[in-house]
Amino acid sequence: MKEAVLEMVCNNVIESMGIADLGCSSGPNSLSVISEIMDTVEAANRLLGRRLVSEFRVFLNDLYSNDFNNIFISLPAFYDRLKEEKGLEFESCFILGAPGSFYGRLFPTNSLHFVHSSSSLHWLSQVPAGLESNALKRLNKGKLYISKSSPQSVVDAYLLQFRNDFSLFIKSRSRELVAGGRMVLSFMGRSSTDPTTENSCYQWELLAQAIMSLAREGRIEEEKLDSFNAPYYAPCAEEIKDEIQKEGSFTIDRLEAFEIDWDGGAVTDIHTPHGKLSVGRRVAKAIRAVVESMLKSHFGIEPDVMDDLFIRYGDIVGTHLSKSRTKYINLVMALTKKW
Amino acid sequence: MKEAVLEMVCNNVIESMGIADLGCSSGPNSLSVISEIMDTVEAANRLLGRRLVSEFRVFLNDLYSNDFNNIFISLPAFYDRLKEEKGLEFESCFILGAPGSFYGRLFPTNSLHFVHSSSSLHWLSQVPAGLESNALKRLNKGKLYISKSSPQSVVDAYLLQFRNDFSLFIKSRSRELVAGGRMVLSFMGRSSTDPTTENSCYQWELLAQAIMSLAREGRIEEEKLDSFNAPYYAPCAEEIKDEIQKEGSFTIDRLEAFEIDWDGGAVTDIHTPHGKLSVGRRVAKAIRAVVESMLKSHFGIEPDVMDDLFIRYGDIVGTHLSKSRTKYINLVMALTKKW
Repeated sequence: MKEAVLEMVCNNVIESMGIADLGCSSGPNSLSVISEIMDTVEAANRLLGRRLVSEFRVFLNDLYSNDFNNIFISLPAFYDRLKEEKGLEFESCFILGAPGSFYGRLFPTNSLHFVHSSSSLHWLSQVPAGLESNALKRLNKGKLYISKSSPQSVVDAYLLQFRNDFSLFIKSRSRELVAGGRMVLSFMGRSSTDPTTENSCYQWELLAQAIMSLAREGRIEEEKLDSFNAPYYAPCAEEIKDEIQKEGSFTIDRLEAFEIDWDGGAVTDIHTPHGKLSVGRRVAKAIRAVVESMLKSHFGIEPDVMDDLFIRYGDIVGTHLSKSRTKYINLVMALTKKW
Repeated sequence: MKEAVLEMVCNNVIESMGIADLGCSSGPNSLSVISEIMDTVEAANRLLGRRLVSEFRVFLNDLYSNDFNNIFISLPAFYDRLKEEKGLEFESCFILGAPGSFYGRLFPTNSLHFVHSSSSLHWLSQVPAGLESNALKRLNKGKLYISKSSPQSVVDAYLLQFRNDFSLFIKSRSRELVAGGRMVLSFMGRSSTDPTTENSCYQWELLAQAIMSLAREGRIEEEKLDSFNAPYYAPCAEEIKDEIQKEGSFTIDRLEAFEIDWDGGAVTDIHTPHGKLSVGRRVAKAIRAVVESMLKSHFGIEPDVMDDLFIRYGDIVGTHLSKSRTKYINLVMALTKKW
């Protein structure tokens, strides 16, 4: 990201820099990317001894239902810090909320210079067609996402939804970015072209196992598991490149895959009983933070069943990771809008 | 407002129209001004048989603590209506949240074409200097705002704070509006140059009486009343003109004063006991909606005392209005940024 920002501000005359963070969420991290981008510009200013950007227009985007209030209430302290640390006045940084889906237009034509999105683009705009909870046929019984045992029609439906969504994303940003504008995206993907590869779907596989074990005890309806498919897709680099090249207005400067530990890489010896438990719990907490609201609205699970589900999931994850150190794949790419 | 919008769009070539509503609050009214502005442009389009504005950038502003979530969640339905009623696509209307104080810069230079603000500019940025709750001397004992019995120093402090705030408002908007851009403002004011005139301060006078009556019963600390002064000022037309002319970049197209009934003009015969009660209650409810949070944070009043306060206030208001039909004065002005 720093590299892309630096190249951007050094190679272009930018009076007023439009920056968007897509999928900013709401919490202590929401402003950290913005802060880092501004730090990078500031460092370049000092390096070159002149002011490269005189004004920042910062757009924080997430879905309409995101808790923007929580971000906005932290802005006075953020502005104070900008003033203190960078000597920037209010007049040079305007932070706005831009609610809406990034699968579609969010900003005026040619209004942005830098687009950032982290950990958001693996979420599809909807459950793939044919796999919705009200679909007539249950194509993916006992699973939450693509699995080794899923029929090809499920894999196809997921890929089609990803292609439609990602191409709309690229097309929309292409209209919004100025020529020479940059985009840095990072999200979950996979390292193999096989969509059933472990590093793309095994966290869902194990979560389905945990749900199934509660279903066998009659604490969750099995039909609910059969009718749920996560609006998620972990693409491989080729699928991404395909859509970017088809759209045609971006060059891919870099596209890299990084392995990430399920438990965030904390140093724990998983081969002790305590280590296994603690790694499993950590992973279960992280996944719960992401999927709980989704599960709650589909399964209508009571709080105590939800607690049990993630205790069970933690155990399953711990046991799995003690045998096979499955990783996530994070894809990171830097794109430039062609001149 | 319609007149100003029409003149604006008919006399200027506007590709992308920047509209800001300052003090948009959060509720069913928050988007109504925006809707009316777009309706007016739409009517002009039809009248002239061509598209006068191809893109709207709409900025909703209020303080950092405003409930923006509540506005944002209503946007999908608003966009749907735009599409249905006006055939406007998402791509032609971008609604953003712009949190912060309008006493200072909120937007980039030359980025706005139309600024609207209703019922907000009578709120000062702070309690006037020397009248704060921690001031050493209690200059305005037993009162909440300027009163007939207030010393001149209180009147002067209020006027000074208004001048500072309003001039900063005008100066900030002058930077943000393009040449030829319009501003329509409406807020509480007074019809006389005398700042102690009834139509500018009597609602506070009666509220102070109600608080005092509870203080006499020991249910509110009298010291709390002595140390509270509302961050509010109802200016007269001359005071407004002064600041606009001093700043120099706006022409005043219109500046008019409207009388408004305290109870919103509902038809009730106040000269019956029932009518007096019901008018008093209606006014008390309206005032309570505005000042309760402020009173709560200063006085720390328990809910039951708060209820009693506004019952008492309603009685006092009913009795007052049955003798003297005091009105509010609403000042409405249309300004154009000079070329």
